[in-house]
Formats: sequence, C-alpha cells, structure tokens
Amino acid sequence: MADRYDASALIAYCADLFAGLGMPAPRAKVVGELLVEADLMGHDTHGLAQAPGYLGDLEAGRMAADGDPDIVADRGGVLTWDGRYLSGVWLVAHAIETAMGRVADHGTVSVSIRRSHHIACLAAFLPLATERGYAVLLTCSDPSVKAVAPYGSYQPTFTPDPLAFGFPTSGDPVLIDISASATTMGLAGRFDAAGERLPGPWLIDNRGRPSDDPAVLKTDPPGAFQPLGGADRGHKGFGLALMIEALTSGLCGHGRAEAPTQWGASVFLQIIDPAAFGGGDALRRETGHLADVCRAAAVPDGGPPVRMPGDGALARKRAALENGVELYPTIMGALQPWAEKAGVRPPRPRA
Amino acid sequence: MADRYDASALIAYCADLFAGLGMPAPRAKVVGELLVEADLMGHDTHGLAQAPGYLGDLEAGRMAADGDPDIVADRGGVLTWDGRYLSGVWLVAHAIETAMGRVADHGTVSVSIRRSHHIACLAAFLPLATERGYAVLLTCSDPSVKAVAPYGSYQPTFTPDPLAFGFPTSGDPVLIDISASATTMGLAGRFDAAGERLPGPWLIDNRGRPSDDPAVLKTDPPGAFQPLGGADRGHKGFGLALMIEALTSGLCGHGRAEAPTQWGASVFLQIIDPAAFGGGDALRRETGHLADVCRAAAVPDGGPPVRMPGDGALARKRAALENGVELYPTIMGALQPWAEKAGVRPPRPRA
Repeated sequence: MADRYDASALIAYCADLFAGLGMPAPRAKVVGELLVEADLMGHDTHGLAQAPGYLGDLEAGRMAADGDPDIVADRGGVLTWDGRYLSGVWLVAHAIETAMGRVADHGTVSVSIRRSHHIACLAAFLPLATERGYAVLLTCSDPSVKAVAPYGSYQPTFTPDPLAFGFPTSGDPVLIDISASATTMGLAGRFDAAGERLPGPWLIDNRGRPSDDPAVLKTDPPGAFQPLGGADRGHKGFGLALMIEALTSGLCGHGRAEAPTQWGASVFLQIIDPAAFGGGDALRRETGHLADVCRAAAVPDGGPPVRMPGDGALARKRAALENGVELYPTIMGALQPWAEKAGVRPPRPRA
Repeated sequence: MADRYDASALIAYCADLFAGLGMPAPRAKVVGELLVEADLMGHDTHGLAQAPGYLGDLEAGRMAADGDPDIVADRGGVLTWDGRYLSGVWLVAHAIETAMGRVADHGTVSVSIRRSHHIACLAAFLPLATERGYAVLLTCSDPSVKAVAPYGSYQPTFTPDPLAFGFPTSGDPVLIDISASATTMGLAGRFDAAGERLPGPWLIDNRGRPSDDPAVLKTDPPGAFQPLGGADRGHKGFGLALMIEALTSGLCGHGRAEAPTQWGASVFLQIIDPAAFGGGDALRRETGHLADVCRAAAVPDGGPPVRMPGDGALARKRAALENGVELYPTIMGALQPWAEKAGVRPPRPRA
C-alpha cells in the first residue's frame, strides 16, 4: 500500500521548501495549503506535483519571491494587476480575498491578472468563495504555451484553457473545473510518461485524424490536443477556448501577441454575490433543487448514480483528511532534492 | 431557387405582426430586427422560425405585450429584473442597452432576468455590444423545459443551456454561440420533422446508449440530449450546463424549483468594458493576433481554412443583405395565418 501523509505535515513541508528559497513564510503557507488542497481533492497532477517546477523557477528568478502585484487599473469592482510572475497560487488567493472584501459594495468584483506565474489547480480555489456564499468564476491561459488546435486545424495554437466555476447550494457546493480541450496536458503527459495510450481519441495527428497516441504530439510538424467536442462538435470547445483567451489575455492586455517565453498565466476571476441579485437563499434553493434532481436522475441498469462536479473531490478530501493523503508515486522523490537544498526534513508517512 | 426577401421588408413584416397583436410599434421593431438578424446570420432555427410561437403566446396572453420589467434589485453595476414574460428578444436588447449605458461607471454591468419570454438567437445580440467595443456574455436556460441528461444519466433534466460570448478584435468581431449540449432542440426537431437521423450520436437512449435517432426522445421512459462531450467527455458539458443554470436561474432566483409551465427564460448577461481593464487597444491587439494565428493555422491537405466563430455568420449576413434573405422553406407559410389575422400583407420576394 502506498504511503499516506497527514495533510498538515505536507502543507508545512511545502511551505518550508518555498520559504527556504526566499518566499515570505505567510505566502509560502498559502501556496502549501492550496497545492495540498488539490492533492486532497484528488487533482494530483496539479497539486504538489507542480511544486518542483515552481521551486526551479523560484530559484532561477523566473518566479518572483516577494512584493505586491503592480496595479494596472482599479475601478472598484474591476481590478487589473501585473503579477510580475509572483506565485500564481498566491496571486489568485490574494485576488479572491481582495474581491470578496469589495463585493458587498459592487455585487460582482472582477480581477484580471497579467504575468502571473502558473496557478496550479483551479478547483482548489473555489471553496474560498463558496464557503462564504459567493459564486466564483476562475479561468486562465498561458500565452507561452501552444498545445490545442483550433477546430479544423491540427496546429498547436493555444493552451487547454481551463475554466472553473463554483457556487453554493443547500448542501455541498458545486465545484466545476473543466477545460476547453478534450484533455489536459497534465493527464496526457502522465500517460505519455507511462508509455500508454489515452483513454480516448482526444488528440489530432498532423494529417487531421483523431488519435489516442501521445506520440502524435512529437511528430514534425506536431499534432495537437483537440478542443472539447472533438472531431464532430469541436467548434464548441474552440468557441469556449476563444472566450477564455479573450477574458484572460484579452482583458489583461498581455498575451500571445507579446510571445512571452516564461511559464505563466493570464488570469481572470470574478466573485459574484447572489445577495446583489435575487438573494442568497433563492440561489441556494435553485441550485440545491437542481443538484437534488440531477443526483436522482435515472441511470442505465447497473450504472452508478449521477455525481455532481465536486462530489468526488469533496469525498476524496474527507477521506484523505481522515486516512492521510496518498500522493502520486513520483511526487516525494521529485521534491527530495529541494528538501536537501533547503535543509528541510520531508514528512514521515503515517504509521 | 428559393424565394429571397429584402431584410428590411422582413423586419417590417415581422414588426407589423407583433404590433397587430398589441405590442407597441417601437418594441415590435426591435423584435423584428433581431429575429431577422438571426436569419441574416443563417441561424434560421432561431430567427423568424420562432415568430409563430411567439405570436401564439402573445395572443394567448402568455407573452406580455407592453410595460416594463419589474426591478427586483439594482446595485448600479448589477441589476435584477422580473421580466413578467415580456418579449425576451426585447428584454435582452433593452438589458444590453441599459448595461452599456452604465458600464463606463462600473467596468462590468450584469443583468439577471427572471420570467423572460424566450430570447431566440443569442448570437444576434452580440454585435450590439461588440460594435461599441465591449465584450458581452449572454446565457439563458428555460426552467419549464427538460431535454438534456446529466452526465451518467439518460433522463431529460435541463435545457441545452446556450452560452454566447462576443468580443471585438482588430478586424471582425468574434461571435461565439454554443450550447452545453451536444446539439440543440431546434436542430434535432428539424431532423425529426424530416424523418432523418442526426449527423452524430448526440442523443442517449433510455438504456444509456449514444444514438443519432430522434425517436429515442419519444420512448417510455424517454431518452435525452447528451451534454457536450458525449459519452466520454460529457462531464465537461454537464459542468458547463450547471454553471449556466446557476448564472441564470440561480442568480435571478427563479427556476426549476418553482416548476414553471410557461415557455420562457432565465437570463444572465454581462457587458464588459475593456477600457476598465488593460484597455480597448490592448484587447483588440491580443484578440486580433489570436484570430490571425487561428485563421492561418495549418489544416490537413485539402481541408478548408480555420473559421473563427462568427466568420460564417457575418459572411452569410453580407451576402443576404446584398442578395436577399433565403428563408427556411416552412417559415413564410407558418406566418401566413398571423398575417391574415393582423390584416398585414406579406412581403413579396425579390424579382
């Protein structure tokens, strides 16, 4: 059986690694909490698995350790920051807190961030807002990365373009975290590293044919990820991707036109206070009803019941808080050199 | 060759039909303009094809002819209306104008509308905002209709849940109009009426099997529309649908929990002023660059070049303004009884 760790020990370990490279301790703690939150939720390609890359960029100066984002514009309910490649995880958490502090005055508060570093797992941020009764939209793109093809093309052109949306209900919150692509780079990379094919034809080769083989991404010219909807409905995923690119790089005014070479993100988030609309009780009545109806919807004989987005993550989190976090096998080994460099002792697995 | 009509003649005809049943003339003109705009764009399931149903509801008192929406809440940058089942086409146009009138003060303005009548073609509204340099999000659901199944279920539970997003670029605007379902009710209905199968397996039968046969919607128990992403990626379309249901019925506080029986819509729209973020020039630079890159992206040998969302619609509109509008064959006949009732003479086709 794989090793299991206490979440609190993993958070402290992660925070110590970032603090060891000069990130202020309170900020390093936020990064640790949100990366481990992703692992708790089972989104383990975007939790501690991202830390070695972040630490490498922090050490090399490609992630700024300290300081505030520069304010590009501030209209009260609408904020634009230059993130200066500060930790994207910290920037997003800071933006959500800032927006929540203003939303009672404005009804919605939007934050647009250019030149953020990578922001890891979008779903992990959503409970920060849903626990306070707000709905939250969070989306990003990385203008330095080309992976997904426009519908009708096989040329890698933009990022998988994730979009997360969370809202409260009368019960558990709904935590949606999807991408405008048929699959994500993290998942495809993991299958590729294991020498396996993907579970579906989510890629496209350089002759325009759907494929489940990660090798098509390495041909000359390379193939690409397909947009959500694939060969017959991919115009929808393409549209979603373009919306996300406009909300992120378009609104912050920094994107593919500048051809940045640095791992990072253009971010857009919005906090929505239902009290400014039809009311928080009314929202929870509607969303709770819908969640109940969906969970009770008929399924084929022998099929599992419908799961709402977030149900699986919240169940995994409850189990991991109880029984310990089971990390993907490569993660602790990849952190080990950073632990040695920082003189930090890795946590011991649960007995 | 099918009959072709001048757009202006169709607009006047449509306006006269609605005015003939008591809708104030300026309002009827807005309805005519936006329904014909959909036909100009080639979205001909959601243009004049909707008018007979609207006229029937107007005559029966299920669409309110006149008056303003009731104001549920107004926080300046956030507005909530009770639409009283006024024309949804007019309500959305009115909401967009209202929001644009306020957006310089707020950066974003959101309008949530409960109890709107049906709003027809979402794409047709987008140019109202993009021509003024704004980005616009428009989405709706109809809490009286159940058509799409949650992922994992075959039970019709919610509407196709369309989402439209438009934004300016350095050239033509990008006009996205997708749904969270694999296909729309209008399209499936048209194939069904013609006794044909759908172009893809976008439905699901009551044993959980993907199907292209509209007959699966009429079994006992009935099958359903699949969410976008279908059998293997449908959790993404399901997530998108839930986001839309929360933004629409959740925020306006009226939806499936009230089990309305009236054809209508819960609407959410947001006008976004890029000047309040990184600036209009910066947005157009980014979005124009992205559009250029997408249009130039490599395609398989013999394949057509990539089209941006809206390219086809704008080309069809330019051609139809030049050569006349070619209506779907059943439309003029379906309007004929209403013309007789209102004493309005239908327009004559172009010679």
